[in-house]
Amino acid sequence: MSEARAKKENSAFPEFLPEDLRQSLKFIETLDQLKQIQRQNLVMDESRRENSAEHSWHISVMAMVLAPYAPVPIDLAKVLKMLLIHDVVEIDAGDTFCYDTQGNADKAEKEQRAADRLFGLLPENANHELRSLWEEFEAGKTAEAQFAASLDRFQTLLQNKNTRGGTWRIHGIPKPRVLERMAPVEKGIPALWPVVEAILEQAVSEGTLSK
Amino acid sequence: MSEARAKKENSAFPEFLPEDLRQSLKFIETLDQLKQIQRQNLVMDESRRENSAEHSWHISVMAMVLAPYAPVPIDLAKVLKMLLIHDVVEIDAGDTFCYDTQGNADKAEKEQRAADRLFGLLPENANHELRSLWEEFEAGKTAEAQFAASLDRFQTLLQNKNTRGGTWRIHGIPKPRVLERMAPVEKGIPALWPVVEAILEQAVSEGTLSK
Repeated sequence: MSEARAKKENSAFPEFLPEDLRQSLKFIETLDQLKQIQRQNLVMDESRRENSAEHSWHISVMAMVLAPYAPVPIDLAKVLKMLLIHDVVEIDAGDTFCYDTQGNADKAEKEQRAADRLFGLLPENANHELRSLWEEFEAGKTAEAQFAASLDRFQTLLQNKNTRGGTWRIHGIPKPRVLERMAPVEKGIPALWPVVEAILEQAVSEGTLSK
Repeated sequence: MSEARAKKENSAFPEFLPEDLRQSLKFIETLDQLKQIQRQNLVMDESRRENSAEHSWHISVMAMVLAPYAPVPIDLAKVLKMLLIHDVVEIDAGDTFCYDTQGNADKAEKEQRAADRLFGLLPENANHELRSLWEEFEAGKTAEAQFAASLDRFQTLLQNKNTRGGTWRIHGIPKPRVLERMAPVEKGIPALWPVVEAILEQAVSEGTLSK
């Protein structure tokens, strides 16, 4: 494995290519590492933890399908781009479990450094575009960012619903903390809020989530 | 595992939700299964085979970054949507290795049936939109479909470049067959063609691809 890694770092693109294209290809190769970032939650057949690349794909398709439920007109292309790159910083910063208070203390700083390095691999225009999309997502102020964040939260709820409580059960997270975590959904996609409430109620009644 | 699967199939959404929303949520849960579809090629650290969900994510981000290299103006939002759903049919039809002649004989028919069932889980408008996007991708006639297909092919080349020949080495695929497989790239993203040629030449010189 370490041999394969060493080889990858050395794998160069031909010198005769335009500098911009070589930078883009280097970034594209680096993206592959997001497939190794394990999230806490499980995939729905419970066979393993989900990785951040497949998670990003899942919520992007969710955006396509749930766009009609946005409470205000949204720029779906921007939402898709945001969701596709929202976790790229985890390649350097790792995935921080949302209920890990200590781990979240220096998360922002680690992720800023990761964004500097990772988006910085790109040519200037693309670096600027992807960095801006990521910062808009993180700031959570625009309708697109709020819609995107709602999907990010709601998907984990679906994973837990289908894995006997998943991370709620494994880490003993009680309902009030889950509700707090899910709060952005109420504003970002109000039509999903009754679904959130019903799933949590069901989980409590099944004993996979504590009151 | 089979117990978890049985549970998942039974997992219902509240009856009080609008029918359209329940259909969309059922589709979204079904999507999770694409994370279990193994492609032949390896992820770049060679630790395991790539799955179709993370593959779809990777080429979607590639589309964002490589859009400036499209030879004609393209609708990037449409490309992203196409790439995000292009492999969904594999949930029922499985992934067919591109160099498997026999497996490819009934691929189209299997995938049409899969598209009927899977996109058919969705409400009518979304079913129509996703089915149309998938058929446009499969037909490969529009600039968007050709751009998208080029990324689908080119990504595998990058995976193989970083895994000592990957599927070329493992299955003994010679260079002429790879060139044939890569042909759409020359039209879809001409700027990448010299990269394809250089990578294949390098692979031959390193002995990971046979002439």
